[in-house]
Amino acid sequence: MKKVGVAILGLGVVGGGTYKILTEHRQKYIQTHGVDISVESVLEVRKERIHALGVDESKVASNISEVCSNPEVDIIIEVMGGVEPAKSYVLAALNAGKSVVTSNKELYCKYGYELEKAAKHNHVGLFYEATCVGGVPVIRALLDNLQGNKITSLIGIINGTTNYILTKMTNDGKSYGEVIKEAQALGYAEADPTSDVDGYDATYKLSILSSICFNKKIPYTEIYREGITNISPVDIAYGKKLGYVIKLLAIGKDSEKGVEVRVHPSFVRVNHPLASVNDSYNAVYITGDSVGDVMLYGRGAGALPTGSAIVGDVIYCATHTQHRYSTFENTETAAPDTKFITNFQSAYYLRFLAADKAGELSKVTSVLGKYGISVAQVVQDIDGNDKEGAVNLILVTHSTRESNIKKAVAAIDKDLTETRVAAVIRVVS
Amino acid sequence: MKKVGVAILGLGVVGGGTYKILTEHRQKYIQTHGVDISVESVLEVRKERIHALGVDESKVASNISEVCSNPEVDIIIEVMGGVEPAKSYVLAALNAGKSVVTSNKELYCKYGYELEKAAKHNHVGLFYEATCVGGVPVIRALLDNLQGNKITSLIGIINGTTNYILTKMTNDGKSYGEVIKEAQALGYAEADPTSDVDGYDATYKLSILSSICFNKKIPYTEIYREGITNISPVDIAYGKKLGYVIKLLAIGKDSEKGVEVRVHPSFVRVNHPLASVNDSYNAVYITGDSVGDVMLYGRGAGALPTGSAIVGDVIYCATHTQHRYSTFENTETAAPDTKFITNFQSAYYLRFLAADKAGELSKVTSVLGKYGISVAQVVQDIDGNDKEGAVNLILVTHSTRESNIKKAVAAIDKDLTETRVAAVIRVVS
Repeated sequence: MKKVGVAILGLGVVGGGTYKILTEHRQKYIQTHGVDISVESVLEVRKERIHALGVDESKVASNISEVCSNPEVDIIIEVMGGVEPAKSYVLAALNAGKSVVTSNKELYCKYGYELEKAAKHNHVGLFYEATCVGGVPVIRALLDNLQGNKITSLIGIINGTTNYILTKMTNDGKSYGEVIKEAQALGYAEADPTSDVDGYDATYKLSILSSICFNKKIPYTEIYREGITNISPVDIAYGKKLGYVIKLLAIGKDSEKGVEVRVHPSFVRVNHPLASVNDSYNAVYITGDSVGDVMLYGRGAGALPTGSAIVGDVIYCATHTQHRYSTFENTETAAPDTKFITNFQSAYYLRFLAADKAGELSKVTSVLGKYGISVAQVVQDIDGNDKEGAVNLILVTHSTRESNIKKAVAAIDKDLTETRVAAVIRVVS
Repeated sequence: MKKVGVAILGLGVVGGGTYKILTEHRQKYIQTHGVDISVESVLEVRKERIHALGVDESKVASNISEVCSNPEVDIIIEVMGGVEPAKSYVLAALNAGKSVVTSNKELYCKYGYELEKAAKHNHVGLFYEATCVGGVPVIRALLDNLQGNKITSLIGIINGTTNYILTKMTNDGKSYGEVIKEAQALGYAEADPTSDVDGYDATYKLSILSSICFNKKIPYTEIYREGITNISPVDIAYGKKLGYVIKLLAIGKDSEKGVEVRVHPSFVRVNHPLASVNDSYNAVYITGDSVGDVMLYGRGAGALPTGSAIVGDVIYCATHTQHRYSTFENTETAAPDTKFITNFQSAYYLRFLAADKAGELSKVTSVLGKYGISVAQVVQDIDGNDKEGAVNLILVTHSTRESNIKKAVAAIDKDLTETRVAAVIRVVS
């Protein structure tokens, strides 16, 4: 019987879930994989967490050196989150000849190149399936199933908190402000929700996923980012009338013209498979030149779903002797020949508050026309009057360039004194 | 540069797609994986296929021995379909020390135990991702991502032809007879569609998938099977009114009570993720004790999607030195201690044609009550009158045992002279 010892750095939500899965299924893995995986060490200062899980006191280490020098430990699981001290601990583990399994998207996104270099140097494994989309098998699918494809596009709902908030806003007609408070009270959003609602978390994951998809380094700093805090129930309601659902999308595209990577709220056609991904569920919609469209769907976060991804990596590491690393050059920055497209091509949902007078719609469309923007759908809604007697004028454009929209919107704001821009939301068709 | 030679047995739809992907992407794989994968041999008697693909004549073998004794060939791809001669060819390949990649679900389902034994004996690889659900990464997801879970349930739409037919029947209100003819004309259904429409193809795939999921051999002969040929547009329409969509589902469940495996048409609630899987798309909805619900969705068939799965296996095989085999005991029959449940628990949609008289509904529900069956939804529809002036009486039951439904339906048919059973369809909630 092969024996494999693991250590867990951090017994928070994900660490606790991982501990439970590993201890409860220990006999199962002996039967299925012929390997006895035991938790030989944990690093956690909060005694209540150790007691709550019933961890044997003798397995509690007092510092990272003790974990790294423990000969019983073969694999170290890092589930602390954040950059430091996680980064130093992971480097210490790799340099001590231990394979590492991590769920730390921020760390892997920002310093994955450095961690991988250390892993290669020490001939050990570095596994990170749990960094993206919880238990949904996306990273290994890209590495080991779809690697025969040229992947042209990846569209993901990869942040559970924002998807929960937008779903609630859509179903209940509530404002962002109301829903975020409820979500915080229920533990679905952090006390400081910035990383989720401003899209940082999604850019970290998109950086990791698009680097694998497009087989070149896509640093998160190159990703256009816009959060959900400005989305209003009015626009969600008008979008619904027009056949759209609002989602925070992470979009990656690769073509001969260059790479396009962006995280922002988007309207999605109601019959698109991503439109039905609700609440805290996540999904990644991948298009490859051979496979066509594939969607991978499931819980993007949580103790047990993320624990499932971690334990999957642990078992893989425990039963494979060969370590593999990135098939692209994993560096700090993008390769000099990587071209990033920032002037996106997209359709747009535009809402204007206009004076309730004849001719305002024609003035607006005339300005749009000047910038080469043609209109696909129009709604003028007197029921939506605000206090000053303005009407809501909603236009969905055909596909155009981001720069054209910016110029047209600025011109309308400046030149049409009785019309002001109330919302600009991209539309994915 | 590592050089890996492959042979392709059969240049039909899938073999042709695989050939195209491998030849068109040869440079790409050199760049991404540092391995030069070349097609060194093909076995195909139809000259027009060889010419259509532009295969170099010198690479065309005249028999399987020539392929197996070719020292340039490391991996043999079997995409012929059917049991013989595919089985003999695959065994010859394995015994000649070649790794095999196959898309042949019938062969792998029926003789996988024998092929794996030969692969183990010869220390070579045997890969079969392409046997199930085309390019959708499901087998490796089960083997390498979700293996930390106890999988309790697998519900799949795993046959593209029947999903295309049922989608067409649902959207156009046409009969099975009309749609199958259209599908055959378009090449979406075989001239003899039995394997698809009677559910055989789905049982082969369910056997393969559920064996991996539940980590024990589930022979296809243990799978309850019912096809789609008796599904009528009337029931699809009533189902729609009640909030259901019809699908041919492959269902596997594992619990302490035993294993339940079945392929049959089912009504699915319209808000279930599987309900939106339309046309020739496939999906597998998996529930594990840690990961929760995961759905993997994509093209279940076709030259390039299936080719994507095959090429994925080829690259994996070409870049890994370690061969792994089933984690369960892969034998011809199920282990003696595997208990199969045949008296399923399910909700049911029942349609009766009843005389348009007061009291018929109460007679029907009274018989159902006698067998312990309670009713969740009722529709009595005078618009649905047939020529004889009968009414459609539709009842959706709460969950009950298959045996109760069979007895109740038989009793209604026998005892209620003015009511006859028109349809019995299981409902997945």
